[in-house]
Amino acid sequence: MPVLVMKFGGTSVATLDRIRRAAKRVGVEVAKGYDVIVIVSAMSGETNKLVGYVEETSPLFDAREYDAVVSSGENVTAGLMALTLQEMDVPARSWQGWQVPLMTTSAHSAARIVDIPTENITRKFGEGMKVAVVAGFQGLSPEGRITTLGRGGSDTTAVAFAAAFGAERCDIYTDVDGVYTTDPRICENARKLDKIAFEEMLELASLGAKVLQTRSVELAMRYKVKLRVLSSFEEQSDEAGTLVCDEEEIMELNVVSGVAHSRDEAKMTLFSVADRPGIAAAIFSPLSEAGINVDMIVQNISEDGRTDMTFSCPTNQVKRAEEALKKAQDSGEINFHNLLADTNVAKISVVGIGMRSHTGVAAKMFKVLSQEGINIKVITTSEIKISVLVDRKYMELAVQALHDAFELEKAA
Amino acid sequence: MPVLVMKFGGTSVATLDRIRRAAKRVGVEVAKGYDVIVIVSAMSGETNKLVGYVEETSPLFDAREYDAVVSSGENVTAGLMALTLQEMDVPARSWQGWQVPLMTTSAHSAARIVDIPTENITRKFGEGMKVAVVAGFQGLSPEGRITTLGRGGSDTTAVAFAAAFGAERCDIYTDVDGVYTTDPRICENARKLDKIAFEEMLELASLGAKVLQTRSVELAMRYKVKLRVLSSFEEQSDEAGTLVCDEEEIMELNVVSGVAHSRDEAKMTLFSVADRPGIAAAIFSPLSEAGINVDMIVQNISEDGRTDMTFSCPTNQVKRAEEALKKAQDSGEINFHNLLADTNVAKISVVGIGMRSHTGVAAKMFKVLSQEGINIKVITTSEIKISVLVDRKYMELAVQALHDAFELEKAA
Repeated sequence: MPVLVMKFGGTSVATLDRIRRAAKRVGVEVAKGYDVIVIVSAMSGETNKLVGYVEETSPLFDAREYDAVVSSGENVTAGLMALTLQEMDVPARSWQGWQVPLMTTSAHSAARIVDIPTENITRKFGEGMKVAVVAGFQGLSPEGRITTLGRGGSDTTAVAFAAAFGAERCDIYTDVDGVYTTDPRICENARKLDKIAFEEMLELASLGAKVLQTRSVELAMRYKVKLRVLSSFEEQSDEAGTLVCDEEEIMELNVVSGVAHSRDEAKMTLFSVADRPGIAAAIFSPLSEAGINVDMIVQNISEDGRTDMTFSCPTNQVKRAEEALKKAQDSGEINFHNLLADTNVAKISVVGIGMRSHTGVAAKMFKVLSQEGINIKVITTSEIKISVLVDRKYMELAVQALHDAFELEKAA
Repeated sequence: MPVLVMKFGGTSVATLDRIRRAAKRVGVEVAKGYDVIVIVSAMSGETNKLVGYVEETSPLFDAREYDAVVSSGENVTAGLMALTLQEMDVPARSWQGWQVPLMTTSAHSAARIVDIPTENITRKFGEGMKVAVVAGFQGLSPEGRITTLGRGGSDTTAVAFAAAFGAERCDIYTDVDGVYTTDPRICENARKLDKIAFEEMLELASLGAKVLQTRSVELAMRYKVKLRVLSSFEEQSDEAGTLVCDEEEIMELNVVSGVAHSRDEAKMTLFSVADRPGIAAAIFSPLSEAGINVDMIVQNISEDGRTDMTFSCPTNQVKRAEEALKKAQDSGEINFHNLLADTNVAKISVVGIGMRSHTGVAAKMFKVLSQEGINIKVITTSEIKISVLVDRKYMELAVQALHDAFELEKAA
């Protein structure tokens, strides 16, 4: 029998009623002839409650005990989902991470999956079981302790199972009905994409379109697992949602697939830095050591042996970045006249795998923004993405203008 | 190091604050030089919530999934207790049932403990760990599924660990401060017992003094585990609570140790049963098959080939008992004129291991009741117990009168 993996997030299993609804979707796929592996999150709110207990008990908690506590929410949902399926006469049973066993590293609270043996579940499928319900987000360390995979771990669990079992597809049920060309709350013309390439999804995910965890997309790309994102709150056809897949499976690649935005980026500028070979390393090493996620970097042309250096980082890391740079200044590692943080900016990106073979996207983007009177502060580009920082007040205007200009409301 | 087992019930770990309080008690024992095994229940209310989920999902639930779901509450408490102890600089870690592994039978929801390997925990004690926090109530079946031990399973877990590790004592922390000569709500002279023999405790437990589960007392008796019942809500000395122990450890055995009562017993009488050899079996086999817990049985002298048969059973089983008996009547297995259920009765028992060597307890009991004008409806006796059924309205009077007559307010 072909295997299908279906993952239901916290809001999709938040109540017994929603679990029943999700179970019905599973029943539909079983009726089509699939052996189904269902990955479940904890009922929404449960994990936060447990995390709250742990943090209140022990601010600097032992991550092994944290994992033992917070993983229990998924165990509850797994059992309840199995029972619900049995009530619908679908042969099902639950698996906790250690029962599979889903082997991970010992990096508690941020463990990485090492191995998923398929023998036990495959044998049960052979004996007539139709659905294996697996508690997401958790695994077993080599020391025999419970581990968790960190934020978004259930998406990652689902993709890893799909890879291990050679599943035909991995369906991620969530509270949105797919991936859009841009944020529908900002741009009413936003269109749901039927397909999107892994690389594009990665750029969109890391740019704040939080439909899928970056890590699960990376894993899906590596193992060529077809991922489908769809809503658990709507009746579904086979073509529902958005398929995240290898670019080769997309007939007509979009030049531009989407416009992403992020409010969480701040711009920092070091004015009049004494320029010398190795100065970039001297600036960014202390930032890296302080755990700052530097994103965009721009260096102006050097004049009189001094230059300006601009970079962006998450807004909530600005303080730490300032401290790290001032410390480097004090210790004589770097020398600058002034340091300025601007948190009043937004990052706008156009993403599209077709950019690889099409030129002129950047020029068009800059022209559109200029026509709207929007000043560009910083620019960076990658193979399939162009990002700019603009004043935050222009964010919505920029997104709408770019969505219109690239005609994203129309299918490719 | 000597090992001590400490068990905390649901009300003793109901909040993070109470967990801290319990952890402090554990810290006191660690400071005395014990290696401590702590058995925890779920935070009070949690297990009922989970049972509610299961029953709503699936009225005739798969007990394997039931066990997987309801066991999760203990896992949460175990992790939180370990973290709390760590915060107090007491080296501790949590164990879930499958990690020990506490091996049980496959009788899900009512599993029996088969084996508790001590190697893992003993090795950790050797490495400097002072407290092993174990999730109570749960184990692992030979098939690798999670089992639960049924009601009161955490008490049983605690006693079994005490037996396996040869613990010096097993302290059961609960919301009462010990075992009393009778219910203090009924008789203000009720006195806390310093010591009570296993056999007496068994009779009192099964008679509705619900301080300890019958099963855990049986296990303690078999393995000669010293059990101490004490309150987690009071400051404790070494002599606090009640020690349940072998009768040989009690210097002065009471003739009567306590007066127990139960409202949950109903009296059923079959009038004018056609008497013949095997009639008792013909009556009680169908009751047994219907799962009725018949307690007291009385058969009157036979006249003209017919007799009256009276028995008692839990009030909530009366309906099922009536149905079973009428079915037996219809099928011709038994023949009676009339069936009468009286749910307006109470069971009063005097219990004392000294009865074995002292005579006259029954006579005294009947005389006391008669002096108070209380009519006795049914009598049964065992080696260390005499029970009677009386009209329920006399229950409190009977308890008080017997408590006074046997001078239970005075220590032996």
